[in-house]
Formats: sequence, structure tokens, C-alpha cells
Amino acid sequence: MSKLRVAVVGASGYAGAVATRLVATHDRLALAFATSDRLVGEGVAAQLGARVDPAVRFVANAAALEHGDACDAVLLATAADVSVRLAPAFAERGKQVVDLSGGFRLAAADYPRWYGFEHAAPAWLERAHYGLPELFGAPPPGALVANPGCYPTAALLALAPLVRAGLVEPTGLVVDAKSGVTGAGRKGGEEYSFVEIDGDLRPYKLLAHQHTPEIARALSAPERPARLTFTAHLLPIARGLLSTCYARPRPGATPERVRACLADAYARTPFVRAVAPEQVMLKRVVGTNLALVGATADADVVVAVAAIDNLLKGAAGQAVQNLNRMNGWDETTGLNGLQRVTP
Amino acid sequence: MSKLRVAVVGASGYAGAVATRLVATHDRLALAFATSDRLVGEGVAAQLGARVDPAVRFVANAAALEHGDACDAVLLATAADVSVRLAPAFAERGKQVVDLSGGFRLAAADYPRWYGFEHAAPAWLERAHYGLPELFGAPPPGALVANPGCYPTAALLALAPLVRAGLVEPTGLVVDAKSGVTGAGRKGGEEYSFVEIDGDLRPYKLLAHQHTPEIARALSAPERPARLTFTAHLLPIARGLLSTCYARPRPGATPERVRACLADAYARTPFVRAVAPEQVMLKRVVGTNLALVGATADADVVVAVAAIDNLLKGAAGQAVQNLNRMNGWDETTGLNGLQRVTP
Amino acid sequence: MSKLRVAVVGASGYAGAVATRLVATHDRLALAFATSDRLVGEGVAAQLGARVDPAVRFVANAAALEHGDACDAVLLATAADVSVRLAPAFAERGKQVVDLSGGFRLAAADYPRWYGFEHAAPAWLERAHYGLPELFGAPPPGALVANPGCYPTAALLALAPLVRAGLVEPTGLVVDAKSGVTGAGRKGGEEYSFVEIDGDLRPYKLLAHQHTPEIARALSAPERPARLTFTAHLLPIARGLLSTCYARPRPGATPERVRACLADAYARTPFVRAVAPEQVMLKRVVGTNLALVGATADADVVVAVAAIDNLLKGAAGQAVQNLNRMNGWDETTGLNGLQRVTP
Amino acid sequence: MSKLRVAVVGASGYAGAVATRLVATHDRLALAFATSDRLVGEGVAAQLGARVDPAVRFVANAAALEHGDACDAVLLATAADVSVRLAPAFAERGKQVVDLSGGFRLAAADYPRWYGFEHAAPAWLERAHYGLPELFGAPPPGALVANPGCYPTAALLALAPLVRAGLVEPTGLVVDAKSGVTGAGRKGGEEYSFVEIDGDLRPYKLLAHQHTPEIARALSAPERPARLTFTAHLLPIARGLLSTCYARPRPGATPERVRACLADAYARTPFVRAVAPEQVMLKRVVGTNLALVGATADADVVVAVAAIDNLLKGAAGQAVQNLNRMNGWDETTGLNGLQRVTP
Repeated sequence: MSKLRVAVVGASGYAGAVATRLVATHDRLALAFATSDRLVGEGVAAQLGARVDPAVRFVANAAALEHGDACDAVLLATAADVSVRLAPAFAERGKQVVDLSGGFRLAAADYPRWYGFEHAAPAWLERAHYGLPELFGAPPPGALVANPGCYPTAALLALAPLVRAGLVEPTGLVVDAKSGVTGAGRKGGEEYSFVEIDGDLRPYKLLAHQHTPEIARALSAPERPARLTFTAHLLPIARGLLSTCYARPRPGATPERVRACLADAYARTPFVRAVAPEQVMLKRVVGTNLALVGATADADVVVAVAAIDNLLKGAAGQAVQNLNRMNGWDETTGLNGLQRVTP
Repeated sequence: MSKLRVAVVGASGYAGAVATRLVATHDRLALAFATSDRLVGEGVAAQLGARVDPAVRFVANAAALEHGDACDAVLLATAADVSVRLAPAFAERGKQVVDLSGGFRLAAADYPRWYGFEHAAPAWLERAHYGLPELFGAPPPGALVANPGCYPTAALLALAPLVRAGLVEPTGLVVDAKSGVTGAGRKGGEEYSFVEIDGDLRPYKLLAHQHTPEIARALSAPERPARLTFTAHLLPIARGLLSTCYARPRPGATPERVRACLADAYARTPFVRAVAPEQVMLKRVVGTNLALVGATADADVVVAVAAIDNLLKGAAGQAVQNLNRMNGWDETTGLNGLQRVTP
Repeated sequence: MSKLRVAVVGASGYAGAVATRLVATHDRLALAFATSDRLVGEGVAAQLGARVDPAVRFVANAAALEHGDACDAVLLATAADVSVRLAPAFAERGKQVVDLSGGFRLAAADYPRWYGFEHAAPAWLERAHYGLPELFGAPPPGALVANPGCYPTAALLALAPLVRAGLVEPTGLVVDAKSGVTGAGRKGGEEYSFVEIDGDLRPYKLLAHQHTPEIARALSAPERPARLTFTAHLLPIARGLLSTCYARPRPGATPERVRACLADAYARTPFVRAVAPEQVMLKRVVGTNLALVGATADADVVVAVAAIDNLLKGAAGQAVQNLNRMNGWDETTGLNGLQRVTP
Repeated sequence: MSKLRVAVVGASGYAGAVATRLVATHDRLALAFATSDRLVGEGVAAQLGARVDPAVRFVANAAALEHGDACDAVLLATAADVSVRLAPAFAERGKQVVDLSGGFRLAAADYPRWYGFEHAAPAWLERAHYGLPELFGAPPPGALVANPGCYPTAALLALAPLVRAGLVEPTGLVVDAKSGVTGAGRKGGEEYSFVEIDGDLRPYKLLAHQHTPEIARALSAPERPARLTFTAHLLPIARGLLSTCYARPRPGATPERVRACLADAYARTPFVRAVAPEQVMLKRVVGTNLALVGATADADVVVAVAAIDNLLKGAAGQAVQNLNRMNGWDETTGLNGLQRVTP
């Protein structure tokens, strides 16, 4: 069985590094090449601890396209503006593309405000598939896959079934999210030093986080635009993301109904499990591609909670899951050997 | 200058231990005695690292009253049902009483539902003063002081000025709170073991936490009953509590107005400081009696954030602050030497 | 290809839980049954997050033997005195046995002092194989495998090649070891609570740790008895073990020679890698079955360092590695999908 | 009572910041000025959370001497080469000087190798007093005080009484030390980022740490030169330092004798306490100026352990303790309000 040759562009960031390791241990994938400007010329195996041929070395990001023929698929773990340029180029050469950035997740009109640039490939935006498999199915053939953001993955897994079922109002939503530091990417700078983060907790980008419109868009239907307040907090841990979501109940939103709604939505999904909301906790997901979701309600509110590993189900694991589905493989391929960190 | 003799009942729990150490290093206080059933007969200095005479030993909780003559004031770091019995007994003997439990914070009618018992001293409930100095002033002479809960302290410092100023609706409030593990008290049990907590985050007591009615009561006015959803989360840190509060804006609730509202409220309070909401972070308060608060707004929401050390401003530090005010001393006495943990 | 049916006895302890998950995701192994007195009747998949049939439930430890026919091999994650009884019983029924306890690692005469009991199966002690594959090779057919302790695994990987090569004196050794809390097993009790461990570091069992004679025995040759001082410290982390070992140099022990010695010893071992000693760090091994070792020297001392994940290379991972070798499979089977925790 | 006016030079590093806060809350000290090139022009109170007049701003390091008349004493939290220049200049103007760097701790001949520069003030080196009060007494009048390094403080408190009493050989010593990240100073750079440090442990500067000759020098007597191997490890915590020291016993070094030796040495020292070695743990000292020491022995080895807060007893706290002794005050002045972090 020949393997699908996968390139990872931006392989020295946290999500890119995890993606590279997953490719290296996946039975049906082989690492075509990995790019990193920071590590160009260094060995991929030595730098990442990835199980690839020790002779394989990082190439520069700028060389990604010129090496394009060496790959069948590409995982873009690049900044949004870089992805906007690279993804169409790879796609037009017939490569499977999964973009881990925010470059293909919003409407074109939203890019200047939320990402600070005019979108250069609006036609490809139309053809992009939002790759949250449990809510949006398998990518259609030829689609460029926009791999969801970590915060949107968690918020949508918790809220989308409830909104779709009409159990909660689609407006007035509050998503209070807490993420480990890897969610901020590989950072130097005193601000992200151990001493400054350890034991700390803080909100950031209040009322201004670029994942807000991504969540709203994925929750909206033409007749039912969604509207939400989103707050991100930086947790003093490396990995893991938990979102606590508050929604106004619509008639019939009893505790039993909201629980059943999530249970039904995820009855057959290998990576998403509905549990009691107090059972939604990071330690049961970190290290794995699992998401846990749970909800309850009273007369005033529906509370729905979700937990994921931000680098796996929130980034690289979901990217591999999307690759699996694009190729018709079992969607757990290459993700089963992952083990949770808390024993 | 003779010192006020202070007894600490329940001195081996986390709040009680911190209270005992604060009494021991306070220029105007002296430790009268400390009780602990777990450590009865052990040395207080050796067990707590408190700077007291090495000969002083813990006495049993049941002996607190019989030692009552040895003290001028008592800090009760006991369970609510124990405090309900002890606080009036000490108060009736003319002792100053600061109760760190929830025993005197709600209306009598709320105790069966939220604390599981009928309140045995409803007359004293009427006379209890809710000891959040920055919002409720100094205790009147002879009052039993109900020291606020840690979650209510943070939520009220963030929300009360906004509610009182009419900048936000008093209903539909959401308080999403995150606390370190000491907030749960000194616990054995595998559930609170290092391995289970480290790297984890989880919500608990969803829609059922006993601090919910305490916050609502302290936010309410006769003509303006408050109503809120409260969620507590357990952080994988020992100390620190941060609450992110969401409120529906009333007319005029611009970002500038909500900021000015908090700035005005705390312009002259030594322990509460209004800052930009992104500057509200645990590392600036843990180890001290400080609270940081901040707020912002958009058309949909007012977000107000507060951070405290749950054992100091959220418990023992505030208790000493109350003692200082009851005795007419500068309210920072004995609390100035505290140093934040993050250097 | 039919799978080897493996039972895990003591499957709710940390090492047992990790072993159970590894069995569940191993291509050539199937979980026969799992025992746990604490969780008897509970679902294995639900409790451990293991990828096994949700219908499989824990059976009592005492039922392990009576279910013996259902398995081909058994991993004993039990206390040493339990293993001493169970291991021979399974072995005599022709089952492959890997014992993770200390029950078969010392000479019979050492058990009363170090484990507090007389060894009940001294004949099986003679036939036990010390299962540190990189130093002691594959188990002979029919051998009961004594899976090494976590501390001995790290200390021996660092020191044994140097002692065997005559580069250091076998006496006067100092092993200063630091381990995460999972090394102590699943514990309740305030002593192991998050608040007590977080931010702490302490030595324990000074000059009295039962891994001391295990290391000495494995380092000794008939003409060259080894003698060492061993100190264990409890780190405020869940997983990971690092040992810093000090030895008196023998003639020729230059920095180059000691490095080359380790490099040669581990040139072809998939799970042990010799690196510069400053590159030996927990973050490169935790989550994987890897060990990193490194050494340097000056005129006074040879310093050799090793790092492992105490639950994988130090326990369950090594047990699976031993199973792989007992069955003639590639020794990395079922262990390649493991991913390091630090991205 | 007029206060001693103290300048802190290098006040935005971790030790400098802690020193500044201690000066600000010390009854007999007043902050004269604080320097920081990074924060020049910023408010000291706002940046450090120090209880000083909000109007006080950082001045540049280069302006320290020109502001010299404004102070009576100076704490130098500067790099060694900077201190070597500044300390004599302040001392010659009659200021009390406590230097927290390594600039005055070694013999002149050792500076090129261990600090990379020729010492520019060897005459002042002769007059420098090594400021470890429990072992070297109060500074003589007019002395420049060389405040000990964090690692030497812990190692010497554990070993010096045993060496001085002749209970252990002064050569062949091993000091295996573990320190929190603040010991490395305020650092940016990915290497010190939260994600890279969290959960990690590693040795560094193997056989090459500049604290090695400082410890050796302070342990040596003319007839008894000391010789040691020193290894530093970076712990995944912010504060705290624990050293485990191994020495060869001399005749009579029974467990009882080594314990008694430490107990006698520290019978009357307010900040150093001899306890059982298993009771030496970070959580009992972090946040305070305390050191805990303990020792035991067998036929092969004496093991002595010490724990301190590296920023307090290991740096700024000890500097204030030295200031107290230089001025004839109780040596605990201004350090009694410190509270341990673990409740």
C-alpha cells in the first residue's frame, strides 16, 4: 500500500510540530517534507522528536511551492495571510489542502476587521469546506479544507446542536473560554515566560478576538443569524481548552432535553462524547483527539461545556481527521495510538 | 500598647491557617488560642509555620467556647453549621466575631436549600453585617461580621458599582468564575490529588453553587432584585480566583462609562484597584490582600473582571481587614507586609 | 492474524491504567480482562478512557486466576506481595507473565528488609528475567519477566555501560533521582493533595528506598559488587523521572570516552538515545517510551544523567516492550503512536 | 524615627523587584530610588506592585551614582561586572553596600575563569564580607557586603557545620541542587517560555557553574581546602531551591551526631531551622526568608539537605537581613510579615 505523501508547512510551530509527528506515525501517510524558517537545514527527527528518517531536514517556508510535486497533500500551519496565498496555489496543482489558519474560515468582508488584510482569494473562500467533521460532514471532492480554530471547535461542538434543535436562542450567547498557552503559538518574549504565566490566569483580547465571527458564522443559518460574546482566558497550563457557554433557553429546553440533544448529536462520532457537564474536564481529553461535551439548564439559562486538546482536536488532530475523511479512510486512522496525559 | 487577643477556630483549614499566621505577625493582634480537631495537642508554630510561641498547642474545636474568656475577638473558620452555633455564643459574651463561613450571609429562608439546614439563630442573621468593606462600609458596633465568600467577593467588587450606577441590568447576569484548589478547603481524597488536578480544568456544582444566592442578595436592592447564573471552575493552581462577569448594558453603558464607574468606586480603597480589564490577572494579586477589577462594553454586553487571592481578600485577609475596621485601626494594618508571589 | 489476549491485573493504578490503554491500541494485543478492586463492575472504557468494548467491566483482583484461561499473557500491576503469589500461578499455567512490581527483582534474602516479607517463590526468583531490554536482552523462553522499577531503569541506563566498560568505580556511586508524583502510585490522602504538592520539592525515604538494592544488584558482577547511595525526590509534576548519577572516574574516563561509551551502548536501540547531558530533559521523553542518557566527566567525577517517563519506559511501556520481545515482534510495536506531551 | 534611605539598582530583575518591595514595607527603610534600564520613566508602584509613592519613577542604571547622595545604603541587583564598578564607588562615598551579584564572592584570580572578566577592584575584594549571617556573622563596620548566591546559601547552610565539625571529609563533596526558574533571572526567549519549562526538568552548566568555587571557598579553611562537584537543575516552578548534598563521613558521623551538629549550629537563628531531612521541603519556605536544613548518615555517606526561597533567603531577603545587622536592628525587621505561599 503506497502512502499519501504529506507536506507540513510551518512545521516548527506547536500545531505544525504535532501535525508532523502525527504524519510520521500514521500508517497511510508519509512525510513529504516539512518547512520552517527558524529551523531550516536542521533535522526534523532531531528537532521535533518525530519518527522520520534522520536525514530529512527542514526547508524554508518560501520553498514550499517549489517542492510541491513531492507531495500529494499539504497541511498549512502558517499565518492566515500566508495560507491565503499558499492554499490556492497547492489546490490548483491538485493537492489536497488542509489549512490550519484562519485564512478560509470567514466571509471575505470580515478579513480586514478581524485579520487585518483584504482576502486575496475570495473565490477559494467560496469553495472552502469548514472542516468540523461532526457538524459539517466530510469535505466534498476538491475542496480546500478550512480546519476550524481551537476555540470555535469547542464552542461549536457544545452549542451547534442546541441552536440547530431550537433549544436555545441564537443570540445573546456567551462563550467563556479558557485555553492553555500553546494556543498562543510558539512565543518568546518575557510575557510568555514561565515565571509570568505560572499560577496566573487572565482574559485577553476582550470583545476583540478573531474567533468570535468564526463561531457566529458557523452557528448561523440564513433565517437565524447568531450573535455572541466571546472571551478567551490564558490558563497556566500548556495544553487543553475548555469552553463554558451560556444561552437563553427556548421553550422546552429542560435539562433532560438539552442532554438528549447532545447525546443524539454525538451518538456515533468516535471523537466527540456527550457526558454529564461536570464530567467535562481537560484531563480526560488532553493528549487525545477527543472532545467531551455536556449541558444542563434551568429557567434562566442553558449551560453547555466542551473540552478538547487545543493542539489535537483543536488543530493538528482534526487536520489529520479531515485528511482521513478526504481519502475515505476510517476517520480514526493514525489517531488511535494517542494516549491521554493524565494517567 | 496592649494587643487584641484573637482566637482562631478551625485553624488548620487553609483559611484558618492563613488567618492564624496573619494574627501572629499583626502588630496589634496576639493569638489567644487556635483550635483544630485534626491537630489537637500539636504545636501551632511547628504545624503552621506561624510565628507564635512554640509552646502554644491546638485545642479541640469543642473547647473553643470554654476558652472564650482568653480572647477579645474570634475568627471562625468553621463549617457554616458550626458557625451558626458558635458565633452568637461568642457575640453574646461581648467578643468581636468575624465568621468566615456562609452561616450569616443569606436570608434565613435560604439556608435549607443552599446549606442543608434550618438556621438556628435567625435573630443574629438580622444583626449580621456583610463584611465587604469597599461596598458595605465598616461594621456597626456590636455587629457580628459575616465575612464574604471568595466567589462573592470577586463578583461583587466587579459588578456592584455597575449595578448600583444603573449601567447594567440587574438580571440576566452571568458570573463565570475560576478558582484555585485551596478554595475547596483542605481535602484528602483521590479527587483532589495532585495527579488528578494538575493540568486539569473543570466546572463544578453547575447551577447549584451556594454562592449564587449570596451574590444575588448583595447585588439586590428592594426595588431592584438581582438574578444571575453562576459557574465555578476548579483551576490547576493552589491560590487565586478570577471572575469574568457578563451583564446586559443599560443606556449609557459605554466602555468609558463603565471604566469610570469602577475607577470612581475604588479611587480611595487601599485594597481594590480599577485597571484595564486585560490587566486583571492573578499574578498581580496572589499573595496579597489586593483585588483588581476592570470592565469594558459593547452594544451587547458589559464584561467586568475581578481577581483576588481567595485565601486573603477572599477569606482571611478580608477578615483581618474587618477586624481592623471594627477597632478603628488603619484597615491595612498587618496586611502591608504581604508580598505577591510572582516576583 | 489473531491477537495475543492480555490480562491486566491491578488496572486502575496509574501503571495499570496506562498498560491497559496500551494493550487496547496495540495491533497484536487484545485486552482479555482487567482487574481492579476499587472499580469492580465499572466499565473499563468509561473509567480509563481506554479504547475497548464499552461492555467490558473490571473484575475483582481475586478473580484474576479464575479468569486465567481467557488470557495468553498477563501484566501484573500489583503490589509486590500480590505479584509473588500471582506470577508463579500464571506462569505455571503457561501464561506469559510480566510483573511490574518489585516481587522478582531482588535476591530472596533481600525481601524481608526492603519489602517487609519473606519471598514465597524463591525458585521462580531464580528463573525471573530482569526485563531491561537494552541492558539484559530478550527474555528467554518461559521466563517470568521482572519489569524493572522506574528509578532503576533510569539509573541503570545511565550507569551500567560506564560500569561495565570500567570507566567508573562500581562503589561510591551516588544516584540523585527526581520523579513525578505518579511514581508514588494512585494515592488519596492530604499528603498527596494538589495543594500540598504544587510548587513543592522534597526528598523521601532517605537511605532507605527499596530501589537501592535493585540498582546495586543490576550493576554488580560477581567480581565487581556495586555500592551506591540513592535519593529519591518528589517533583511537583505528574509524570517524568530524571536521575543525576555521580561516579568516581577510573583511568581513561575522559569526557570523550564516557560520551562514546553511552553512544556505542545505545547506537541501535530504538528507545534509548545518547545525547549531550544538558540535552537530557523530561520534556523530550514524557508521553513516550524513550529514554535519553548523557554523561560528562572531569578529574573528580563522572556525571551521567537519564530521563524517562516513569509510567512508560519506567513501567507500562517497558512492559509492552518486553511482551513484544517475548513474542518476537518488533520491539516498538504498539509504542510508535505515543507522542511527547510538550509540543 | 528617621528611616534609612535605600536605593535599589537593577530593580526590575526578579531579585531587584523583590528587594524593592521589601524596602517599601520595612519599618526602618525608605526607598530612595530604584533603577532599571528596561523600565526607565515608568512608575515603580505600578510596575512592581510595590507600596511606594505612585509618583516615584525608575531612573536609568547609569544614573545610579549621580543620585547617590539621595541614599544612605544601596542594594545592587546588577550583573557582576556592573557591581564590581558600582560597589566601590558607593562604598567610597560612605554608603552601606550590599551586592547581590557574584562580584565580590571569589578570589580575584578566579574571576576570569568563572565570570569572564578581570576583577577591577581587588582591594575591595579583600574588604568584602561574605554575608551569610548564620555562618559568617555580622558585617564589620564599613564592609562591603557580598550577598551570597542562592545555590551557595543552601549548600553552605547544609554542609558548613558538618565540615567545620569534622564530621565529613571536605573533599569529594557532591551538591545536587534544584532551583525554580526565577533563579535564572528575568528572561525572555523561547527557552524560558512557559511551554518549554512546564513539566520539564533538566541539568544545566554541568561541571561549569560559577557557584562551584563560591561554595568551595566558603567551605575551605587554610588547612582544609574543600573540593566539590556541583550540579544545578532547573525545576518547573517559579520559586524555591533545594540542595541535596553528599559527603564522605569521617569517624563518628552517626545519624545522631550529624543531626545534633545542625541542631546546635542553628539553635538560635531565627531564619534557619534544623529538622529531620525528610521535613526539608520547598513548601515550608517559599514566600519566607526561612531556610530548613536536615541531615542523616550511614556507613557510606552523610546526606544533608537544605531548602530556601531563592529570591528571599537566597537573594533579596538575605540582603535585607544583612542591612538589618549592619544597622544593629533585630535581624528579622521587615521580614516578619512574609508568609509562606503554600497555605
